[in-house]
Amino acid sequence: MSERNSVLIGRKPAMNYVLACITLFHGGATEINVKARGRAISRAVDVVEITRRRFLPDIKVKSIDIGTEQMAPTEERSSPTNVSTIEIKLGK
Amino acid sequence: MSERNSVLIGRKPAMNYVLACITLFHGGATEINVKARGRAISRAVDVVEITRRRFLPDIKVKSIDIGTEQMAPTEERSSPTNVSTIEIKLGK
Repeated sequence: MSERNSVLIGRKPAMNYVLACITLFHGGATEINVKARGRAISRAVDVVEITRRRFLPDIKVKSIDIGTEQMAPTEERSSPTNVSTIEIKLGK
Repeated sequence: MSERNSVLIGRKPAMNYVLACITLFHGGATEINVKARGRAISRAVDVVEITRRRFLPDIKVKSIDIGTEQMAPTEERSSPTNVSTIEIKLGK
């Protein structure tokens, strides 16, 4: 899957990402990947549920994968930390 | 699946629920269900990842389902609201 068809969920309101998903499908994408890390995981599920239930009832959840990523140390954190991830594949 | 083998994720630290999962498997469960709603969804993914990676490497994610539940109106909210849900099935 090309990264073009990915929607990375951040801290904005869920509807921003719902709109991104709808735009990708309307632009011809047949499959898109909704990705999130850490506390944005809940929002990723909201985005998928709102997209499917309110706007694009033909879209199905194809797969859901969870995992762990190690985040490199930063100025605030001296040791690497683990963060959970989710990847939800949506398609027609 | 019996409700006995479910772990409902709330607001406590993730390790409390990790311990609940480990206890169920050590008590003979072969499959357990980790469930969460709303913002606890991120914590549910953390619980599953910590349980598998740090404590029980033989345990696999069997399935992940997401959905929407309608919450009845309360004193604070006059209209029903939708909340996202996740259900992660773990097994040997």
